[in-house]
Amino acid sequence: MKVIRTIVDLRTEIKHARSQDKNISLVPTMGYLHAGHAALVSAATKKSDFVCVSIFVNRLQFNSNKDFETYPKSEASDIEICKQAGAALVFIPSHEEMYALDPAIELSMPALSVNLCGPVRPGHFEGVLLIVARLFNLFQPDLAFFGKKDYQQYRIIERLVRDLNFPLEVVGCETVREPDGLAMSSRNANLKPEHREQAALIFRSFKILLKAFENGIVDPVELVEIAQDVIVSGPDNRVEYLQIVHPESLELLTVIEGPFVVAAAVFCGEVRLIDNVLIEV
Amino acid sequence: MKVIRTIVDLRTEIKHARSQDKNISLVPTMGYLHAGHAALVSAATKKSDFVCVSIFVNRLQFNSNKDFETYPKSEASDIEICKQAGAALVFIPSHEEMYALDPAIELSMPALSVNLCGPVRPGHFEGVLLIVARLFNLFQPDLAFFGKKDYQQYRIIERLVRDLNFPLEVVGCETVREPDGLAMSSRNANLKPEHREQAALIFRSFKILLKAFENGIVDPVELVEIAQDVIVSGPDNRVEYLQIVHPESLELLTVIEGPFVVAAAVFCGEVRLIDNVLIEV
Repeated sequence: MKVIRTIVDLRTEIKHARSQDKNISLVPTMGYLHAGHAALVSAATKKSDFVCVSIFVNRLQFNSNKDFETYPKSEASDIEICKQAGAALVFIPSHEEMYALDPAIELSMPALSVNLCGPVRPGHFEGVLLIVARLFNLFQPDLAFFGKKDYQQYRIIERLVRDLNFPLEVVGCETVREPDGLAMSSRNANLKPEHREQAALIFRSFKILLKAFENGIVDPVELVEIAQDVIVSGPDNRVEYLQIVHPESLELLTVIEGPFVVAAAVFCGEVRLIDNVLIEV
Repeated sequence: MKVIRTIVDLRTEIKHARSQDKNISLVPTMGYLHAGHAALVSAATKKSDFVCVSIFVNRLQFNSNKDFETYPKSEASDIEICKQAGAALVFIPSHEEMYALDPAIELSMPALSVNLCGPVRPGHFEGVLLIVARLFNLFQPDLAFFGKKDYQQYRIIERLVRDLNFPLEVVGCETVREPDGLAMSSRNANLKPEHREQAALIFRSFKILLKAFENGIVDPVELVEIAQDVIVSGPDNRVEYLQIVHPESLELLTVIEGPFVVAAAVFCGEVRLIDNVLIEV
């Protein structure tokens, strides 16, 4: 497995892989890799013979400096996880390498940024769109793998690809969870030990909401209240949002008439966690 | 030469050309081709062995419906010009083919849209950026050719490519002119016969400005006045803007210390024409 740090070297490797007719896949990450990322890489190896992982903490998508600075890092272990999972190449550029020139282009997707993380993280999806578009052009992958834990990001990137005709397929992979249901996330590492159990209440709230739905409660407002009560039964949890939205348009649902997504952002102490479930009807 | 009308067929042709290791170039146009376009195609044939021309009047980049509706069309002659100039493929999609789905993505480049056409054509460069990014992803060209007549567009696209790491080179080609200096433009076809001579005053004004500059007048305000006076000596000419800007940043210059661009938009009767010259110092 090659570890590449510059755009020039990356171009060379991609050109070489292309010339050998390899099917290229990309797993974009921000590092501090866990089993969820490993599952993405594994899924990629099943559909492609040249799996690339990018590791880049993209400052532009952080709306808070503190959040950026405390984002955990672990390069050596990241490289090892990529190798074990079957990656052929890992790209780890510096901030200077990626932003040698201040970008003048601005990308946004207002229609899919109205709800969920959009309003509470101003600039976040603009930063995501910019870096992902750049990574697509750098790797020219046939497939790109994203975790559905970041459901809104997944839908936004799917739409980016469709809207700009990127010649690639976006593959969304199911969220990988701890035994108690907590969604794997690099941010879990920042949780205080006394908050760890409370963090599992997020997924538990979704399961209780689903049960209520199956028992005939179909009003989104009522369902949201049920789930919120579960989450804040953890005294150190604070719900930033908990919304029921359409799986594609991400519009808030006032009545449930088909599949829906329950998505939440919760502060467990100081650590902001997000999670979601898609409920088929 | 193949004439292609659907994205599916285009993808097939591009894939085939790529599999033969062809060097692909793209000349994006809005049709009603003239000698300026032919020069772009010709230039492309010298650097590439698979020259593609796209012909698509992109509604999204028109800020006026009337302007869109009166934009001239001539498909049969366009196809002939492409063939004569050595193109291998012409892509002529319908509006429905290109905008089957309303794009949710928005691209903009505020920093390079402050002056010149930016403020007077709201939404124009956003429309250009969107369609050009899409065409780049559809054709995956090694080279893309743009006329410097649309100087601001040329610089914006160059920056789009750099900012998003599109794996291609933007080639800017010199403006092709009528014998009296009028820049070739599809819009010239809409000029009334009695305005044709007045239209040539735009380029003439640049030449007189250059002479004044060579004679020691270096104040941009004074230079602009000199050129404007020349243009409005045509009684049916109305200057929308005439600005002296930095060749790369497109910022208005208050002092001239290096190369500069003089660019103007002028209504000759009802027809809006643009032109520019780069003056090396």
